[in-house]
Amino acid sequence: MTSEDGWSLDLQLARDTTTVGDLPLCQVRLIDDANYPWLLLIPRRRNVSEIIDLKEGDRAQLMREVARAADVLKTGTGCHKINVAALGNVVAQLHVHVIARFHSDPAWPKPVWGFAPPQPYDDYVRTKLIAAIREQLAIAK
Amino acid sequence: MTSEDGWSLDLQLARDTTTVGDLPLCQVRLIDDANYPWLLLIPRRRNVSEIIDLKEGDRAQLMREVARAADVLKTGTGCHKINVAALGNVVAQLHVHVIARFHSDPAWPKPVWGFAPPQPYDDYVRTKLIAAIREQLAIAK
Repeated sequence: MTSEDGWSLDLQLARDTTTVGDLPLCQVRLIDDANYPWLLLIPRRRNVSEIIDLKEGDRAQLMREVARAADVLKTGTGCHKINVAALGNVVAQLHVHVIARFHSDPAWPKPVWGFAPPQPYDDYVRTKLIAAIREQLAIAK
Repeated sequence: MTSEDGWSLDLQLARDTTTVGDLPLCQVRLIDDANYPWLLLIPRRRNVSEIIDLKEGDRAQLMREVARAADVLKTGTGCHKINVAALGNVVAQLHVHVIARFHSDPAWPKPVWGFAPPQPYDDYVRTKLIAAIREQLAIAK
């Protein structure tokens, strides 16, 4: 039995996002909001809502994967700042936000949550963005 | 020369917080807002504004120290959720928020930033809280 047994993605997280792919620990998803290039990293572990619910090795891996995602967003978008956050007040399943922020984005310099209504992606733009992120993260489709 | 050479705490971070003490990597400070038990962890490294500006060993240590702080807040306060975030849109110096959240707190379930005006601590309460956190983090005064 692996630690992934019985893990399934929270339905609300699934609804607001599109799959990018799997890193060794986390499922990577793109938030469906064209206001910000915004990834979610969700460790594929059951019954985990806090970082401290993860075992130490998984925590270390989470940091490596967050750094990888941050690096890809920073390099790929040329953003001014990366925001990283594990909040989880609404959806309990542990998920880490990694967000590319620009001085020109709708919420800058405030945090993004609850600020501007989500802006739908043009399908072509989203597909290209996800393909680019997949390639940079070296995630197979 | 150590990596700490030339590091100094950002003045705005200093102004809004009280010193708790030093972990191996981070200076730990308490945000002066009695609405939420709220720690800041600031890596004592020069010219670092993103997690990915840290070397890999420091990133791993940051994760360990964030987990320690989260554990202490969770155990010490009995809070319902821990929020962890590295935003830094206003103050560039890398600082990680570790916040104890309660269903009864003023911002719940929203993020805390920009929600309720900071509530001053009673001096006695703050002193006791800092002493308790120091003891649990095994930080000397």
